[in-house]
Amino acid sequence: MRLAELSERSGVSTATIKYYLREGLLPAGRRISATQADYDDAHLRRLRLVRALIQIGRVPVATARQVLAYVDDDSLGQTIRLGAALWELPHEPEPDEEDPQTAVARAEVDRLLELLGWATARELGALSPNHRVLTATLVRLTHLGYPMDAEALLPYAQGLGRLAELDLDRLEDVPTPAEKVEAAVAAAVLFEPVLLCLRRLAQEEESARRFGLS
Amino acid sequence: MRLAELSERSGVSTATIKYYLREGLLPAGRRISATQADYDDAHLRRLRLVRALIQIGRVPVATARQVLAYVDDDSLGQTIRLGAALWELPHEPEPDEEDPQTAVARAEVDRLLELLGWATARELGALSPNHRVLTATLVRLTHLGYPMDAEALLPYAQGLGRLAELDLDRLEDVPTPAEKVEAAVAAAVLFEPVLLCLRRLAQEEESARRFGLS
Repeated sequence: MRLAELSERSGVSTATIKYYLREGLLPAGRRISATQADYDDAHLRRLRLVRALIQIGRVPVATARQVLAYVDDDSLGQTIRLGAALWELPHEPEPDEEDPQTAVARAEVDRLLELLGWATARELGALSPNHRVLTATLVRLTHLGYPMDAEALLPYAQGLGRLAELDLDRLEDVPTPAEKVEAAVAAAVLFEPVLLCLRRLAQEEESARRFGLS
Repeated sequence: MRLAELSERSGVSTATIKYYLREGLLPAGRRISATQADYDDAHLRRLRLVRALIQIGRVPVATARQVLAYVDDDSLGQTIRLGAALWELPHEPEPDEEDPQTAVARAEVDRLLELLGWATARELGALSPNHRVLTATLVRLTHLGYPMDAEALLPYAQGLGRLAELDLDRLEDVPTPAEKVEAAVAAAVLFEPVLLCLRRLAQEEESARRFGLS
């Protein structure tokens, strides 16, 4: 398809597509004349991912470029490729090593992973940004007067573990490894707001069930 | 306790506490002289909640004031009081009624609630900001090329429904209705980042289980 059709089908303006091409976020089309190039479904899919990262994920352009480099690197194994792409997404807060509560919270995260039997997460430890953000968030909760220990977190982690199985099941239907990574990154960025809405709706429902509506 | 001790125990500077007092976010202490007032544990608890709303929840001061008004209004039933306080928190995006996909997404949300048998959520419908944000987010997902229907959302909603039971169980231990609402608001604002970290850790674990680490 031509640039105009790519714009039409993706809902992204031609000016923005040209910007993504210049920034290397979208591979060049197949040149068919001095002024025209041809784009295919892979371009359309990549364009949707770039838009998800930048518009919904609010990921900086340089970060998006790094995420896409991992998505495209087929020398990496599936878990690492997926992990590396997701790890490049913005993560905050980072733990404050000056704060004595950081060591306490980190020990609690490690104890949680042991209770869960999550061997990979234990092995990766603070290498994973998710481990670090969880540690830093628990420190914040402690300082705000709402401490949570491994036992309090355990049933939530178990429930989310079952949902992660669903996430990975959905990935099985995606044909190629590169598309799997693409879908996983899009899901991480796009699906979190859906989960938070569903959680709050579930809380309203459960509250009404226990206390009535009035 | 005096202002200095309230500051010490809450980790909030005396200047910030004075600002919260002026803004009506924290009730005045019991006056014990022309220049000194006495504060109690209720002040400390409220101060933690205000800090959670403003610092973690990034809630504007006027919104925080409105949330606290519901927290304190004991003429309201428990579900409404909790709901009203949570509903005052910032919610976005709102559905775009000009977009033909909005009606499609709203029908899908209603069909999901029917499949779930969530009677209160169905009754409240788009009155609940969570219903509206879910609708708007599904529209966004559709435009980005990742549509989700009621069947795809169902197992996630069911899983989060089980976690909402845990949330409400934890509230049972909180003594007074005002403190329950306070704890629920703090949990909504503070606990969401924890859940997102746990979800990503669970995904890494499940990915390693299926594809190995390399």
